[in-house]
Amino acid sequence: MAVTLERRVDYPMIDNANIAYYPRIYDLAHRFFEEAWELMCDISYPKIIEEHRLGFPVVNIETNFIHPLRYGDIVTANISIANIGTKSCTWQYDFYNQEKTHLWSSKQVTVCVNMDSLASTKIPEWLSNGLSNHQQ
Amino acid sequence: MAVTLERRVDYPMIDNANIAYYPRIYDLAHRFFEEAWELMCDISYPKIIEEHRLGFPVVNIETNFIHPLRYGDIVTANISIANIGTKSCTWQYDFYNQEKTHLWSSKQVTVCVNMDSLASTKIPEWLSNGLSNHQQ
Amino acid sequence: MAVTLERRVDYPMIDNANIAYYPRIYDLAHRFFEEAWELMCDISYPKIIEEHRLGFPVVNIETNFIHPLRYGDIVTANISIANIGTKSCTWQYDFYNQEKTHLWSSKQVTVCVNMDSLASTKIPEWLSNGLSNHQQ
Amino acid sequence: MAVTLERRVDYPMIDNANIAYYPRIYDLAHRFFEEAWELMCDISYPKIIEEHRLGFPVVNIETNFIHPLRYGDIVTANISIANIGTKSCTWQYDFYNQEKTHLWSSKQVTVCVNMDSLASTKIPEWLSNGLSNHQQ
Repeated sequence: MAVTLERRVDYPMIDNANIAYYPRIYDLAHRFFEEAWELMCDISYPKIIEEHRLGFPVVNIETNFIHPLRYGDIVTANISIANIGTKSCTWQYDFYNQEKTHLWSSKQVTVCVNMDSLASTKIPEWLSNGLSNHQQ
Repeated sequence: MAVTLERRVDYPMIDNANIAYYPRIYDLAHRFFEEAWELMCDISYPKIIEEHRLGFPVVNIETNFIHPLRYGDIVTANISIANIGTKSCTWQYDFYNQEKTHLWSSKQVTVCVNMDSLASTKIPEWLSNGLSNHQQ
Repeated sequence: MAVTLERRVDYPMIDNANIAYYPRIYDLAHRFFEEAWELMCDISYPKIIEEHRLGFPVVNIETNFIHPLRYGDIVTANISIANIGTKSCTWQYDFYNQEKTHLWSSKQVTVCVNMDSLASTKIPEWLSNGLSNHQQ
Repeated sequence: MAVTLERRVDYPMIDNANIAYYPRIYDLAHRFFEEAWELMCDISYPKIIEEHRLGFPVVNIETNFIHPLRYGDIVTANISIANIGTKSCTWQYDFYNQEKTHLWSSKQVTVCVNMDSLASTKIPEWLSNGLSNHQQ
């Protein structure tokens, strides 16, 4: 079951073609990703990083840019877990605008790492349970 | 034949895990992409946009994040054309650091559009020739 | 009377010293600035730009960075108009965190311009009224 | 004596008014600031941070935005030290474009801090000498 989050397309996202500059769509996805932890696992991403020294850097991405994001659009993000393994999990992002137009679809494999060594490590149960509950 | 470009990993690219924040690697790729036009097609991207009102937004991306980019690294980018069609062309990026470690590999499909309407359009010959010369 | 807005310090704002990278505090201020128009003048900044072709670029800034912004902080922004002239107006920003610590104070002079020519122009009454109502 | 550095205005700096979005001018200034250390003090900023755990966050800024930065412009930055104290030093930035138009002028007070504690600390001699040599 996906979680749903919403953010406005702010001015700094827009380029001179009047659409979102694509690296800033990934930046937007990351801001949703951060917020998703609280909804999926009942813990904030800042806490996961700072108190548990765990992080989830991305190792593989596949993305379709379907429709431009425009200034002032309200982006609704559906975020679910496509797959979860021992040390990695795959996130599925789908963005829609206020007219329900499908804007963006991205599959992102992230690996659980220790934030000090960046070595990969087992996803702890107190996270994997919440992630599993949000599988597609 | 690939073109080769080089940029330093500046401080603003780095996050609190002391590695490049991944959307900023796409931003770096886009900065290389811009510069590549001059080497491939003998015309600057600002000129293509401003005088010819053409642009090449990305519609599909596949990326592998192989090794972290660190502050102060010198990134060497090898950029070539994987494929060229009538209206679209596919770019292949490979990034290496100063120790020749393979950092990042990304395949990006871009579509030639009119910058005012954003409608797709035929890649003009004065660009397709240069692009074709840099096919893998 | 100031308007009050709130945003979280997201991960991309943070640098490797674990505090917000200062140009991104200006970026945050701009995102608040955008939102403030709706509260002050009952019109969205996208509409002002796109339908009326007016914008308010900054020409002078004075800022005190008082206390670091940290990851996960909730920033409360108090935004008021310090001064309003025929073609320009001066904004006063004060940021506080969830502990009411004063973080950041910035005075920014903006000029009303035509977005196509970038020539300065008189602030129209349908904006100056709302701005005046939010003078300190 | 000022040091002089040069960078191109890349596409991601530009907003939909076709000029540089002002927080990204500060970001550009910071990239120049980083590079200036090598020219002024013969040591890279990454080394100062990573090996000596010192940094120079900004505490006060005064800026005039004189002329727009446009896509493709070559920005020449003149950077000098306006003032140097025991724990702080003030930087003066002046940006010019390829037509010698004065674009941007900014005075920025930075404080020497320990990067782990963020406590202010004495500027070590191996840095203050080089900085002093670049006073106006």
